[in-house]
Amino acid sequence: MDPQHYMRLALELARSASEQTSPNPLVGAVCVKDGRILGTGAHLKAETPHAEVHALAMAGANSIGADLYVTLEPCAHTGKTPSCTDLIISSGIQRVFVASIDPNPSVNGAGIGLLKVAGIEVITGILQEEAEQLNQAFFHFIRYGKPYVTLKATATLNGRLSTQNGDSKWITSAASRTDVHHLRHTHDAILVDVQTVLHDNPFLTTRLPHGGKNPIRINLDRHLRTPNQRMLLQTAL
Amino acid sequence: MDPQHYMRLALELARSASEQTSPNPLVGAVCVKDGRILGTGAHLKAETPHAEVHALAMAGANSIGADLYVTLEPCAHTGKTPSCTDLIISSGIQRVFVASIDPNPSVNGAGIGLLKVAGIEVITGILQEEAEQLNQAFFHFIRYGKPYVTLKATATLNGRLSTQNGDSKWITSAASRTDVHHLRHTHDAILVDVQTVLHDNPFLTTRLPHGGKNPIRINLDRHLRTPNQRMLLQTAL
Repeated sequence: MDPQHYMRLALELARSASEQTSPNPLVGAVCVKDGRILGTGAHLKAETPHAEVHALAMAGANSIGADLYVTLEPCAHTGKTPSCTDLIISSGIQRVFVASIDPNPSVNGAGIGLLKVAGIEVITGILQEEAEQLNQAFFHFIRYGKPYVTLKATATLNGRLSTQNGDSKWITSAASRTDVHHLRHTHDAILVDVQTVLHDNPFLTTRLPHGGKNPIRINLDRHLRTPNQRMLLQTAL
Repeated sequence: MDPQHYMRLALELARSASEQTSPNPLVGAVCVKDGRILGTGAHLKAETPHAEVHALAMAGANSIGADLYVTLEPCAHTGKTPSCTDLIISSGIQRVFVASIDPNPSVNGAGIGLLKVAGIEVITGILQEEAEQLNQAFFHFIRYGKPYVTLKATATLNGRLSTQNGDSKWITSAASRTDVHHLRHTHDAILVDVQTVLHDNPFLTTRLPHGGKNPIRINLDRHLRTPNQRMLLQTAL
């Protein structure tokens, strides 16, 4: 029943949409009044409603006087639809609990500021660390203007990857290869050098037991040495 | 990405509405297509929409060809609103994953039967044990027609609760007293005998750090010996 309890649920909802909101961040929202959950929501896909919209729609008229828990500061920019900040104000929400501040220059405190101006109490910092961890790729991109990169490296004891005549076997374990496919599923793109394409002829697709999202495949090949027969070019995503 | 993954989320959503759905069971639902979550929902309160309604409303037209995960068999009886079974069929859902069968005589397999007749694939038994555990009070009530009872008992080494002149102190620890208030929060009613009311003069209310739901207070007092001044009668809920 404490604020962390509801924020943890909002984080869980946010996490449920992992790998499906890019380039947007993962966000969850929970609407609560008198210890009773009135609405829950998560942002599920770019260009579809934000988490707050789902949670407030579910709460309906009961949102008047209620608390709203959001894992990321509500947006403040009005586009095709009203901003979440406006929606929260017009829904009669009394208190807003925010886990992490949106570093996006178009928000970055503006959402919270507008809520306060409207007389809404705003409590920040609830489970902030978990919330920032959840969106580390998004935060990194906004802060540094660069993609968040995961490097996959393999090594052998003697530094060799194949025998003299090019024979080679998997260096990594089955668990590590499952990890790789999970990483492909959770990343927007995968980048290799043409040498990898020439020697390993990889698909670079996601092959998990129950499917998964394929990353965009980037092949650094400045002299266009990739032959047509490579798997990379033979498999459509 | 496996069925358990989505069912676990549905169970988490169901659990989030703990203590607020009685006399209805806790139910969660998740709508998924191509490894992408399209909608989530929980039943939040009796006489408000079922979990499936929220999840399918969030998914909208995308529900065509999607999978639906529900922690309890969908209802089959049409009342003021269409049954969830009808809604699932008209939403174009292709597969339904069900954790536990609804033992309620008005459902009890009928929901699943109607789905199958409509050509929908139904997969049962996913995380069934967790789902039944979640609604053990509901299942007990439906199966035996009796309330699910939690007995709170305290004991001392010598079997005495007070000194000869009636002096007494708490026997239980602070942790145990917090437990008691959590139990009050999660139960519909609390029952004591008039002797407890006369000797201890309890409030029988829920006093947790962040509030909570008060149970209905039942005092077994067949000779109407409870004086008006008792806390039980002096505190409105």
